[in-house]
Amino acid sequence: MTGRGRPPDPDLEARVHAAALELYAEVGWAGFSLDVVARRARVGKAALYGRWGSKERLIVDALSGWRPRQPLVEWPGPLREDLVRMATAILDGYFDRHGLVLLRAQVEAKVYPELFGQALEELQRERIVAGRAIVVGAIERGELPAGTSPALVLDAVAGILTNHVLSTPASRMPALAERKHKYAEETVDFVLSAVGYAPETEH
Amino acid sequence: MTGRGRPPDPDLEARVHAAALELYAEVGWAGFSLDVVARRARVGKAALYGRWGSKERLIVDALSGWRPRQPLVEWPGPLREDLVRMATAILDGYFDRHGLVLLRAQVEAKVYPELFGQALEELQRERIVAGRAIVVGAIERGELPAGTSPALVLDAVAGILTNHVLSTPASRMPALAERKHKYAEETVDFVLSAVGYAPETEH
Repeated sequence: MTGRGRPPDPDLEARVHAAALELYAEVGWAGFSLDVVARRARVGKAALYGRWGSKERLIVDALSGWRPRQPLVEWPGPLREDLVRMATAILDGYFDRHGLVLLRAQVEAKVYPELFGQALEELQRERIVAGRAIVVGAIERGELPAGTSPALVLDAVAGILTNHVLSTPASRMPALAERKHKYAEETVDFVLSAVGYAPETEH
Repeated sequence: MTGRGRPPDPDLEARVHAAALELYAEVGWAGFSLDVVARRARVGKAALYGRWGSKERLIVDALSGWRPRQPLVEWPGPLREDLVRMATAILDGYFDRHGLVLLRAQVEAKVYPELFGQALEELQRERIVAGRAIVVGAIERGELPAGTSPALVLDAVAGILTNHVLSTPASRMPALAERKHKYAEETVDFVLSAVGYAPETEH
Protein backbone atom coordinates (compact mmCIF):
# COMPACT_ATOMS: atom_id res chain seq x y z
CA MET A 1 0.00 0.00 0.00
CA THR A 2 2.81 2.39 0.80
CA GLY A 3 4.80 1.50 -2.31
CA ARG A 4 7.91 1.10 -0.19
CA GLY A 5 8.14 -2.66 -0.01
CA ARG A 6 7.54 -4.73 3.11
CA PRO A 7 6.97 -2.50 6.11
CA PRO A 8 8.91 -3.33 9.27
CA ASP A 9 5.71 -3.01 11.36
CA PRO A 10 2.75 -4.49 9.50
CA ASP A 11 0.12 -3.21 11.97
CA LEU A 12 1.47 0.31 11.99
CA GLU A 13 -1.04 1.80 9.61
CA ALA A 14 -4.05 0.24 11.34
CA ARG A 15 -2.82 1.28 14.80
CA VAL A 16 -2.11 4.82 13.65
CA HIS A 17 -5.48 5.15 11.93
CA ALA A 18 -7.32 3.88 15.03
CA ALA A 19 -5.39 6.23 17.33
CA ALA A 20 -5.92 9.14 14.94
CA LEU A 21 -9.69 8.63 14.80
CA GLU A 22 -9.93 8.15 18.56
CA LEU A 23 -8.02 11.37 19.18
CA TYR A 24 -10.03 13.18 16.54
CA ALA A 25 -13.32 12.12 18.20
CA GLU A 26 -12.05 13.61 21.46
CA VAL A 27 -10.47 16.88 20.40
CA GLY A 28 -11.41 17.60 16.78
CA TRP A 29 -9.16 19.20 14.26
CA ALA A 30 -7.82 22.08 16.34
CA GLY A 31 -6.53 19.76 19.05
CA PHE A 32 -5.23 17.09 16.70
CA SER A 33 -1.53 16.37 17.09
CA LEU A 34 0.86 13.92 15.45
CA ASP A 35 2.82 13.63 18.69
CA VAL A 36 -0.22 12.45 20.64
CA VAL A 37 -1.13 9.99 17.88
CA ALA A 38 2.45 8.64 17.93
CA ARG A 39 2.29 8.07 21.69
CA ARG A 40 -1.11 6.42 21.66
CA ALA A 41 -0.31 4.20 18.69
CA ARG A 42 3.07 3.28 20.23
CA VAL A 43 4.84 4.40 17.07
CA GLY A 44 8.01 6.42 16.84
CA LYS A 45 7.55 10.03 15.81
CA ALA A 46 10.10 9.55 13.02
CA ALA A 47 8.08 6.69 11.53
CA LEU A 48 4.87 8.71 11.80
CA TYR A 49 6.29 11.87 10.25
CA GLY A 50 8.08 9.79 7.61
CA ARG A 51 4.91 8.05 6.52
CA TRP A 52 2.34 10.91 6.84
CA GLY A 53 4.34 14.10 7.05
CA SER A 54 1.62 16.39 8.36
CA LYS A 55 -1.50 16.25 10.47
CA GLU A 56 -3.52 17.16 7.38
CA ARG A 57 -2.30 14.09 5.52
CA LEU A 58 -2.86 11.78 8.47
CA ILE A 59 -6.42 12.85 9.25
CA VAL A 60 -7.51 12.75 5.62
CA ASP A 61 -5.90 9.32 5.19
CA ALA A 62 -7.53 8.00 8.38
CA LEU A 63 -10.95 9.34 7.40
CA SER A 64 -10.63 7.97 3.87
CA GLY A 65 -9.77 4.50 5.16
CA TRP A 66 -12.51 4.55 7.76
CA ARG A 67 -16.02 3.30 7.43
CA PRO A 68 -18.79 3.75 9.98
CA ARG A 69 -19.63 0.48 11.64
CA GLN A 70 -22.97 0.47 9.90
CA PRO A 71 -23.30 -2.57 7.62
CA LEU A 72 -23.55 -1.27 4.11
CA VAL A 73 -24.62 -4.39 2.21
CA GLU A 74 -27.46 -6.85 2.16
CA TRP A 75 -30.79 -5.28 2.75
CA PRO A 76 -33.14 -8.15 2.02
CA GLY A 77 -36.22 -6.46 3.43
CA PRO A 78 -38.78 -6.17 4.78
CA LEU A 79 -38.14 -2.44 4.90
CA ARG A 80 -38.97 -2.09 8.58
CA GLU A 81 -36.33 -4.66 9.52
CA ASP A 82 -33.69 -3.08 7.27
CA LEU A 83 -34.32 0.34 8.75
CA VAL A 84 -34.36 -0.91 12.36
CA ARG A 85 -31.01 -2.62 11.70
CA MET A 86 -29.63 0.58 10.21
CA ALA A 87 -31.01 2.66 13.12
CA THR A 88 -29.53 0.32 15.72
CA ALA A 89 -26.14 0.51 14.02
CA ILE A 90 -26.30 4.32 14.05
CA LEU A 91 -27.14 4.32 17.79
CA ASP A 92 -24.34 1.83 18.52
CA GLY A 93 -21.92 4.21 16.84
CA TYR A 94 -22.90 6.95 19.27
CA PHE A 95 -22.56 4.74 22.32
CA ASP A 96 -18.94 3.89 21.53
CA ARG A 97 -18.02 7.38 20.22
CA HIS A 98 -17.50 5.98 16.76
CA GLY A 99 -20.35 8.14 15.53
CA LEU A 100 -18.72 11.24 16.99
CA VAL A 101 -15.98 10.99 14.35
CA LEU A 102 -18.50 11.43 11.57
CA LEU A 103 -20.36 14.24 13.37
CA ARG A 104 -17.15 16.10 14.13
CA ALA A 105 -15.97 15.76 10.54
CA GLN A 106 -19.36 16.94 9.26
CA VAL A 107 -19.30 20.01 11.52
CA GLU A 108 -15.68 20.79 10.69
CA ALA A 109 -16.20 20.34 6.95
CA LYS A 110 -18.35 23.46 7.23
CA VAL A 111 -15.42 25.37 8.71
CA TYR A 112 -12.54 23.76 6.77
CA PRO A 113 -14.11 22.48 3.53
CA GLU A 114 -10.77 22.28 1.74
CA LEU A 115 -9.46 19.91 4.40
CA PHE A 116 -12.28 17.44 5.04
CA GLY A 117 -14.58 18.05 2.12
CA GLN A 118 -13.43 15.31 -0.20
CA ALA A 119 -12.86 12.51 2.33
CA LEU A 120 -16.27 13.21 3.77
CA GLU A 121 -18.06 13.30 0.46
CA GLU A 122 -16.71 9.83 -0.33
CA LEU A 123 -17.90 8.50 3.02
CA GLN A 124 -21.27 10.07 2.57
CA ARG A 125 -21.66 8.89 -1.00
CA GLU A 126 -21.37 5.30 0.24
CA ARG A 127 -23.98 5.87 2.90
CA ILE A 128 -26.29 7.47 0.39
CA VAL A 129 -25.85 4.62 -2.10
CA ALA A 130 -26.56 2.06 0.63
CA GLY A 131 -29.54 4.02 1.88
CA ARG A 132 -30.98 4.39 -1.59
CA ALA A 133 -30.72 0.62 -2.05
CA ILE A 134 -32.87 0.09 1.05
CA VAL A 135 -35.61 2.42 -0.14
CA VAL A 136 -35.49 1.40 -3.81
CA GLY A 137 -35.71 -2.28 -2.79
CA ALA A 138 -38.78 -1.49 -0.70
CA ILE A 139 -40.42 0.34 -3.61
CA GLU A 140 -39.72 -2.65 -5.90
CA ARG A 141 -41.28 -5.03 -3.38
CA GLY A 142 -44.34 -2.77 -3.19
CA GLU A 143 -43.73 -1.77 0.42
CA LEU A 144 -43.45 1.94 -0.41
CA PRO A 145 -45.21 4.12 -2.97
CA ALA A 146 -43.22 4.74 -6.16
CA GLY A 147 -41.63 8.18 -5.96
CA THR A 148 -40.82 8.00 -2.26
CA SER A 149 -37.73 10.16 -1.64
CA PRO A 150 -34.86 7.99 -0.34
CA ALA A 151 -33.07 11.10 0.93
CA LEU A 152 -36.00 12.20 3.05
CA VAL A 153 -36.54 8.73 4.57
CA LEU A 154 -32.85 8.38 5.41
CA ASP A 155 -32.39 11.96 6.67
CA ALA A 156 -35.42 11.36 8.86
CA VAL A 157 -34.21 8.13 10.48
CA ALA A 158 -30.61 9.26 10.93
CA GLY A 159 -31.60 12.80 11.90
CA ILE A 160 -34.12 11.85 14.58
CA LEU A 161 -31.62 9.48 16.19
CA THR A 162 -28.76 11.96 16.01
CA ASN A 163 -30.80 14.83 17.38
CA HIS A 164 -32.07 12.67 20.21
CA VAL A 165 -28.60 11.43 21.15
CA LEU A 166 -27.16 14.94 21.02
CA SER A 167 -29.96 16.25 23.25
CA THR A 168 -29.51 13.47 25.80
CA PRO A 169 -27.27 14.42 28.75
CA ALA A 170 -24.28 12.12 29.25
CA SER A 171 -25.81 10.95 32.52
CA ARG A 172 -28.83 9.57 30.67
CA MET A 173 -26.91 7.82 27.87
CA PRO A 174 -26.76 4.48 29.74
CA ALA A 175 -30.56 4.45 30.06
CA LEU A 176 -30.86 5.21 26.33
CA ALA A 177 -28.40 2.40 25.57
CA GLU A 178 -30.61 -0.02 27.46
CA ARG A 179 -33.70 0.82 25.44
CA LYS A 180 -31.91 1.39 22.16
CA HIS A 181 -33.72 -1.33 20.24
CA LYS A 182 -37.12 -0.03 21.30
CA TYR A 183 -36.09 3.51 20.47
CA ALA A 184 -34.82 2.43 17.04
CA GLU A 185 -38.19 0.77 16.39
CA GLU A 186 -40.20 3.81 17.52
CA THR A 187 -38.14 6.06 15.27
CA VAL A 188 -38.50 3.82 12.25
CA ASP A 189 -42.25 3.41 12.82
CA PHE A 190 -42.64 7.17 13.06
CA VAL A 191 -40.85 7.68 9.75
CA LEU A 192 -42.71 4.82 8.07
CA SER A 193 -46.03 6.31 9.10
CA ALA A 194 -45.08 9.43 7.14
CA VAL A 195 -44.47 7.61 3.87
CA GLY A 196 -47.42 5.32 3.35
CA TYR A 197 -45.65 2.12 4.35
CA ALA A 198 -47.46 -1.09 3.42
CA PRO A 199 -45.61 -4.09 4.85
CA GLU A 200 -45.19 -7.16 2.65
CA THR A 201 -47.82 -9.76 3.46
CA GLU A 202 -46.30 -12.82 1.77
CA HIS A 203 -44.49 -15.44 3.82
CA MET B 1 -23.64 41.71 36.81
CA THR B 2 -20.03 41.34 37.91
CA GLY B 3 -20.69 42.72 41.36
CA ARG B 4 -17.68 44.99 40.96
CA GLY B 5 -19.38 48.29 40.32
CA ARG B 6 -19.42 50.16 37.04
CA PRO B 7 -17.14 48.53 34.48
CA PRO B 8 -14.74 50.78 32.56
CA ASP B 9 -15.75 49.15 29.24
CA PRO B 10 -19.49 48.54 29.18
CA ASP B 11 -19.46 46.44 25.97
CA LEU B 12 -16.62 44.23 27.12
CA GLU B 13 -18.74 41.28 28.16
CA ALA B 14 -20.83 41.25 24.97
CA ARG B 15 -17.74 41.56 22.74
CA VAL B 16 -15.92 38.83 24.60
CA HIS B 17 -18.92 36.50 24.50
CA ALA B 18 -19.37 37.04 20.77
CA ALA B 19 -15.67 36.47 20.06
CA ALA B 20 -15.64 33.41 22.30
CA LEU B 21 -18.60 31.80 20.52
CA GLU B 22 -17.21 32.64 17.08
CA LEU B 23 -13.86 31.07 17.95
CA TYR B 24 -15.58 28.08 19.53
CA ALA B 25 -17.62 27.47 16.35
CA GLU B 26 -14.38 27.41 14.38
CA VAL B 27 -12.06 25.36 16.54
CA GLY B 28 -14.06 23.71 19.32
CA TRP B 29 -12.85 23.20 22.83
CA ALA B 30 -9.37 21.84 22.12
CA GLY B 31 -8.41 24.88 20.06
CA PHE B 32 -10.07 27.43 22.29
CA SER B 33 -7.70 30.06 23.65
CA LEU B 34 -8.14 33.12 25.84
CA ASP B 35 -5.37 34.89 23.95
CA VAL B 36 -7.17 34.56 20.63
CA VAL B 37 -10.44 35.71 22.20
CA ALA B 38 -8.66 38.73 23.68
CA ARG B 39 -7.25 39.67 20.28
CA ARG B 40 -10.51 39.25 18.41
CA ALA B 41 -12.56 41.09 21.04
CA ARG B 42 -9.97 43.89 21.20
CA VAL B 43 -9.67 43.41 24.95
CA GLY B 44 -6.51 43.37 26.98
CA LYS B 45 -5.39 39.98 28.21
CA ALA B 46 -5.21 41.30 31.77
CA ALA B 47 -8.87 42.37 31.64
CA LEU B 48 -9.88 39.01 30.16
CA TYR B 49 -7.96 36.91 32.67
CA GLY B 50 -9.09 39.19 35.50
CA ARG B 51 -12.75 38.80 34.63
CA TRP B 52 -12.86 35.09 33.54
CA GLY B 53 -9.66 33.54 34.80
CA SER B 54 -9.69 30.39 32.69
CA LYS B 55 -10.93 29.18 29.35
CA GLU B 56 -13.33 26.86 31.18
CA ARG B 57 -15.01 29.78 32.92
CA LEU B 58 -15.22 31.86 29.76
CA ILE B 59 -16.73 29.20 27.52
CA VAL B 60 -19.29 28.13 30.12
CA ASP B 61 -20.22 31.78 30.74
CA ALA B 62 -20.53 32.49 27.01
CA LEU B 63 -22.66 29.40 26.42
CA SER B 64 -24.87 30.18 29.41
CA GLY B 65 -25.50 33.72 28.19
CA TRP B 66 -26.10 32.62 24.62
CA ARG B 67 -29.38 31.75 23.01
CA PRO B 68 -29.83 30.30 19.53
CA ARG B 69 -31.37 32.82 17.21
CA GLN B 70 -34.55 30.78 17.11
CA PRO B 71 -37.50 32.80 18.43
CA LEU B 72 -38.65 31.04 21.57
CA VAL B 73 -41.96 32.76 22.23
CA GLU B 74 -45.29 33.30 20.52
CA TRP B 75 -46.46 30.29 18.63
CA PRO B 76 -49.99 31.33 17.71
CA GLY B 77 -50.56 28.48 15.29
CA PRO B 78 -51.53 27.08 12.93
CA LEU B 79 -49.04 24.34 13.69
CA ARG B 80 -47.67 24.16 10.16
CA GLU B 81 -46.76 27.85 10.23
CA ASP B 82 -45.16 27.61 13.67
CA LEU B 83 -43.06 24.64 12.61
CA VAL B 84 -42.02 26.22 9.29
CA ARG B 85 -40.93 29.31 11.20
CA MET B 86 -38.96 27.16 13.63
CA ALA B 87 -37.42 25.14 10.78
CA THR B 88 -36.40 28.27 8.89
CA ALA B 89 -34.75 29.66 12.02
CA ILE B 90 -32.81 26.41 12.49
CA LEU B 91 -31.60 26.53 8.86
CA ASP B 92 -30.64 30.21 9.20
CA GLY B 93 -28.49 29.25 12.18
CA TYR B 94 -26.53 26.83 10.02
CA PHE B 95 -26.01 29.32 7.22
CA ASP B 96 -24.33 31.84 9.52
CA ARG B 97 -22.45 29.22 11.63
CA HIS B 98 -24.50 30.14 14.66
CA GLY B 99 -25.92 26.62 14.67
CA LEU B 100 -22.43 25.14 14.68
CA VAL B 101 -21.92 26.41 18.22
CA LEU B 102 -24.78 24.27 19.48
CA LEU B 103 -23.72 21.22 17.44
CA ARG B 104 -20.12 21.50 18.62
CA ALA B 105 -21.20 21.87 22.22
CA GLN B 106 -23.54 18.89 21.90
CA VAL B 107 -20.78 16.70 20.43
CA GLU B 108 -18.25 17.86 23.02
CA ALA B 109 -20.65 17.39 25.92
CA LYS B 110 -20.35 13.68 25.13
CA VAL B 111 -16.58 13.91 25.54
CA TYR B 112 -16.36 16.45 28.36
CA PRO B 113 -19.71 16.22 30.21
CA GLU B 114 -18.33 17.88 33.33
CA LEU B 115 -17.42 20.98 31.31
CA PHE B 116 -20.39 21.61 29.03
CA GLY B 117 -23.07 19.43 30.54
CA GLN B 118 -24.84 21.97 32.68
CA ALA B 119 -24.72 25.00 30.35
CA LEU B 120 -26.01 22.81 27.56
CA GLU B 121 -28.80 21.27 29.59
CA GLU B 122 -30.11 24.76 30.38
CA LEU B 123 -30.02 25.75 26.71
CA GLN B 124 -31.76 22.57 25.72
CA ARG B 125 -34.36 22.80 28.42
CA GLU B 126 -35.48 26.15 26.96
CA ARG B 127 -35.71 24.69 23.49
CA ILE B 128 -37.68 21.73 24.79
CA VAL B 129 -40.09 23.97 26.72
CA ALA B 130 -40.64 26.14 23.62
CA GLY B 131 -41.06 23.09 21.40
CA ARG B 132 -43.54 21.50 23.78
CA ALA B 133 -45.58 24.72 23.71
CA ILE B 134 -45.89 24.47 19.92
CA VAL B 135 -47.10 20.89 19.99
CA VAL B 136 -49.33 21.26 23.05
CA GLY B 137 -50.96 24.34 21.50
CA ALA B 138 -51.67 22.36 18.35
CA ILE B 139 -53.24 19.53 20.37
CA GLU B 140 -55.44 22.04 22.22
CA ARG B 141 -56.60 23.56 18.93
CA GLY B 142 -57.43 20.08 17.66
CA GLU B 143 -54.73 20.12 14.98
CA LEU B 144 -52.94 17.07 16.38
CA PRO B 145 -54.25 13.94 18.08
CA ALA B 146 -54.06 13.99 21.88
CA GLY B 147 -51.03 12.02 23.00
CA THR B 148 -48.78 13.15 20.15
CA SER B 149 -45.19 13.10 21.43
CA PRO B 150 -43.71 16.62 21.36
CA ALA B 151 -40.20 15.18 21.60
CA LEU B 152 -40.64 13.02 18.52
CA VAL B 153 -42.13 15.84 16.43
CA LEU B 154 -39.35 18.24 17.41
CA ASP B 155 -36.52 15.70 17.10
CA ALA B 156 -37.88 14.90 13.65
CA VAL B 157 -38.00 18.47 12.34
CA ALA B 158 -34.67 19.52 13.85
CA GLY B 159 -33.01 16.20 13.09
CA ILE B 160 -33.99 16.06 9.41
CA LEU B 161 -32.74 19.60 8.86
CA THR B 162 -29.51 19.03 10.78
CA ASN B 163 -28.73 15.77 9.04
CA HIS B 164 -29.40 17.31 5.66
CA VAL B 165 -27.21 20.34 6.33
CA LEU B 166 -24.39 18.17 7.67
CA SER B 167 -24.56 15.92 4.60
CA THR B 168 -24.52 18.86 2.19
CA PRO B 169 -21.04 19.71 0.87
CA ALA B 170 -19.93 23.29 1.54
CA SER B 171 -20.05 23.95 -2.21
CA ARG B 172 -23.79 23.22 -2.28
CA MET B 173 -24.74 25.25 0.79
CA PRO B 174 -25.51 28.41 -1.24
CA ALA B 175 -28.01 26.44 -3.34
CA LEU B 176 -29.61 25.10 -0.17
CA ALA B 177 -29.75 28.62 1.26
CA GLU B 178 -31.67 29.75 -1.80
CA ARG B 179 -34.34 27.12 -1.42
CA LYS B 180 -34.39 27.10 2.35
CA HIS B 181 -38.01 28.09 2.74
CA LYS B 182 -39.18 25.36 0.38
CA TYR B 183 -36.96 22.83 2.12
CA ALA B 184 -38.31 23.90 5.53
CA GLU B 185 -41.85 23.38 4.22
CA GLU B 186 -41.08 19.95 2.74
CA THR B 187 -39.53 18.84 6.01
CA VAL B 188 -42.44 20.06 8.11
CA ASP B 189 -44.98 18.48 5.75
CA PHE B 190 -43.13 15.18 5.92
CA VAL B 191 -43.22 15.22 9.72
CA LEU B 192 -46.83 16.34 9.85
CA SER B 193 -47.87 13.50 7.59
CA ALA B 194 -46.46 11.11 10.22
CA VAL B 195 -48.60 12.45 13.07
CA GLY B 196 -52.13 12.70 11.74
CA TYR B 197 -52.12 16.45 11.24
CA ALA B 198 -55.52 18.02 10.69
CA PRO B 199 -55.14 21.72 9.88
CA GLU B 200 -57.54 24.17 11.49
CA THR B 201 -60.31 25.08 9.09
CA GLU B 202 -61.51 28.30 10.71
CA HIS B 203 -60.21 31.62 9.40
